[in-house]
Amino acid sequence: MRVLGIDPGSRHTGYGVVASDGDRLISVAYGSVPLPATVPLPVRLGRIFAEISRLIEETRPEEMAVEDVFVSRNARSALILGQARGAAIAAGIHGGVGVFEYSALAIKQAVVGYGKAEKGQVMQMIRLLLGLHDLNDPHAADALAVAVCHIHARTVSRRFRIADRP
Amino acid sequence: MRVLGIDPGSRHTGYGVVASDGDRLISVAYGSVPLPATVPLPVRLGRIFAEISRLIEETRPEEMAVEDVFVSRNARSALILGQARGAAIAAGIHGGVGVFEYSALAIKQAVVGYGKAEKGQVMQMIRLLLGLHDLNDPHAADALAVAVCHIHARTVSRRFRIADRP
Repeated sequence: MRVLGIDPGSRHTGYGVVASDGDRLISVAYGSVPLPATVPLPVRLGRIFAEISRLIEETRPEEMAVEDVFVSRNARSALILGQARGAAIAAGIHGGVGVFEYSALAIKQAVVGYGKAEKGQVMQMIRLLLGLHDLNDPHAADALAVAVCHIHARTVSRRFRIADRP
Repeated sequence: MRVLGIDPGSRHTGYGVVASDGDRLISVAYGSVPLPATVPLPVRLGRIFAEISRLIEETRPEEMAVEDVFVSRNARSALILGQARGAAIAAGIHGGVGVFEYSALAIKQAVVGYGKAEKGQVMQMIRLLLGLHDLNDPHAADALAVAVCHIHARTVSRRFRIADRP
């Protein structure tokens, strides 16, 4: 299967497309959309939508996974982050791709095997899992991580389904 | 000019298209998109995007105006509201329409003449201004109000521009 992972943000939105072939994971595309603060927010949201739409068209993922953002700080920043997330999810649905959400805890658990792993550990594991030794963009790494998490979740549910059969 | 006003919300997103002809204001279309809580959020965001895209195509507004939401409650609700707003604004930009934002204070000031007006007063003034005696949907009324506010702002800036000329 092929999954588009998204790490939404109003300054940088990371993306990563991961394909699974049996137990092997292959990175198809990754990067991040820079969204300079000097650009008005509506234009930034339009750019997120356009870039994700383009990615879906070019890489044809079957599903999309988005990190369910952790709301720690104030309501104002949650509102801005929510808008970036809304534009990204709208692009997925508009592109005919099912959208799934995972908490940061679930993503770290799936990728590192430990829900309280550091950000650096996630990047390191993504480098190893996908053979991306030069990966240095934390937004792309987080996006690839949520894609890997979704593939793990899908594989587990498929195994259970097979095991359920008489 | 013709303006699409949007009152974004994750449960109901109101819309209203208003055209101005000299000093006359005409309502072209209005209503709200119901977004039941039983429907998953990504699907609701997709519906907001699709409905606004359809409206832009059918009514051809030149500009879009969105209420800049007042963040009073917790970060969680701000995040959800932000996502609805992000999907709506992405639809505007994707549809080639310039997007403008107004505070609730500015909208009430423009429509009622008093920034601290009650919601019911806004609906009453919208009914009078647009001749919509049966209007009863508060989300549609708020959306029409932000469209009227934008037309007022545009008219004022145009008048200033004309006055500036030698």
